[in-house]
Amino acid sequence: MSRSIPRCLGVLGGMGPLAGAQFAARVVQLTPASCDQEHIPLLLCNDPRVPDRSTAWVGGGLSPLPAMMRGIAMLQDDGADCIAIPCNTAHLWFDQLQAATSARLLHIVEAVVVDLRRQGIDQGAIGILGTRATLETGLYQRYLAQSGYEPVVPTAPDAVADCAESIAAVKGGRVDQAFAPLARAIASLERAGARAVALGCTELPLALPHVRRAEFDVVLTDSMDALALQAVETFYPRTAIPRKNLGTQA
Amino acid sequence: MSRSIPRCLGVLGGMGPLAGAQFAARVVQLTPASCDQEHIPLLLCNDPRVPDRSTAWVGGGLSPLPAMMRGIAMLQDDGADCIAIPCNTAHLWFDQLQAATSARLLHIVEAVVVDLRRQGIDQGAIGILGTRATLETGLYQRYLAQSGYEPVVPTAPDAVADCAESIAAVKGGRVDQAFAPLARAIASLERAGARAVALGCTELPLALPHVRRAEFDVVLTDSMDALALQAVETFYPRTAIPRKNLGTQA
Repeated sequence: MSRSIPRCLGVLGGMGPLAGAQFAARVVQLTPASCDQEHIPLLLCNDPRVPDRSTAWVGGGLSPLPAMMRGIAMLQDDGADCIAIPCNTAHLWFDQLQAATSARLLHIVEAVVVDLRRQGIDQGAIGILGTRATLETGLYQRYLAQSGYEPVVPTAPDAVADCAESIAAVKGGRVDQAFAPLARAIASLERAGARAVALGCTELPLALPHVRRAEFDVVLTDSMDALALQAVETFYPRTAIPRKNLGTQA
Repeated sequence: MSRSIPRCLGVLGGMGPLAGAQFAARVVQLTPASCDQEHIPLLLCNDPRVPDRSTAWVGGGLSPLPAMMRGIAMLQDDGADCIAIPCNTAHLWFDQLQAATSARLLHIVEAVVVDLRRQGIDQGAIGILGTRATLETGLYQRYLAQSGYEPVVPTAPDAVADCAESIAAVKGGRVDQAFAPLARAIASLERAGARAVALGCTELPLALPHVRRAEFDVVLTDSMDALALQAVETFYPRTAIPRKNLGTQA
């Protein structure tokens, strides 16, 4: 990477709000700093009034694009020269957003591919969980196939419903009800042959505390942490962050 | 409270960075919303380059005031009409900050007094833990005395050192080393007669996970959660938030 090191990380959050705030916390937790002043300057726009991304794609609801463009313009005006969007579905509009700003946008699915390699997974079947829009539009499938993986999406109606139920529980503030359906969806992809499963919606990592991830036989790649690591490595390009640090969620 | 309900919460964070990000997450977790769009629009300025607040008061280091004023001006320009500062020591400059903005600033020590009453503590000895500057300037002592409480500060050199050690461990990314010294400092205040202890530095709640708070006999009031609750109640003025919801930290 020959680009210059950015100075301020913008976070276009609010999609959902807990994911946006938790992403900011994960960036801090994963930064190799020993005092306040060594941390990455970060601006978070956590405006949850952005129209629902999945509804817009699947059901023709209001487009979230104008609100997302306003958020990115505000972050850039305030000094952010690198921007992360901790919402997978929002990446369906990635090209339009990048075309509208000179700030560097980090791509969450690229970050997941980097994280798979970081975890030693270079090939094979990768399960994908996410919103209906993320799954149906092939957002992950395209990137994974281009990178030499074989994408596996949930096909059983139960697995699709389980994934949606987990996401809705997190968005509705019922995080304790989000674990069981997600665990079933992961197990379903494992039975379908996946050697790793991508938590391809930033609500899903919130459903699955780090301390419980060792219960799964399959490798998990968490799109929120993957994007946070990508951000930290962009600001600290010479730092290899050990995987063991990933479990330090407060 | 006859003031109008604000539209957007600004958070002047970065002091420290984990406290700023975690505060944003606590506001989301404590908001009685059932979908993304019902949450409070929130902007977080998490710029950790603000000069150290304690050093400025105690040792005559660079003043943090100009950086804090720039952050507040930016938040207000971006639409924030109510601003929270999740850093106790920063409140030593509260009057100057409030004088420089027409946005409503929430005061963290007032929020702690409200939280004591919410927990049924109307009088008696209240222990205070915080940075050296917070303790020596009497920030808490003044508010507590005005509100009918008897403030108790750590006097044993060990207790003062324990508190400082816990704060430094959180700021240095060694959260696992922050619990033991904090537990000793709390026990010391309890022996000195405190019936409740205020975690009067926003690093301290990060040292003490909610699930471990039941281990203490003394009532704890957490300045981060107290300020988050104050913010939520400002945006949802008719909502009484049950104390049981306070334990839902992700």
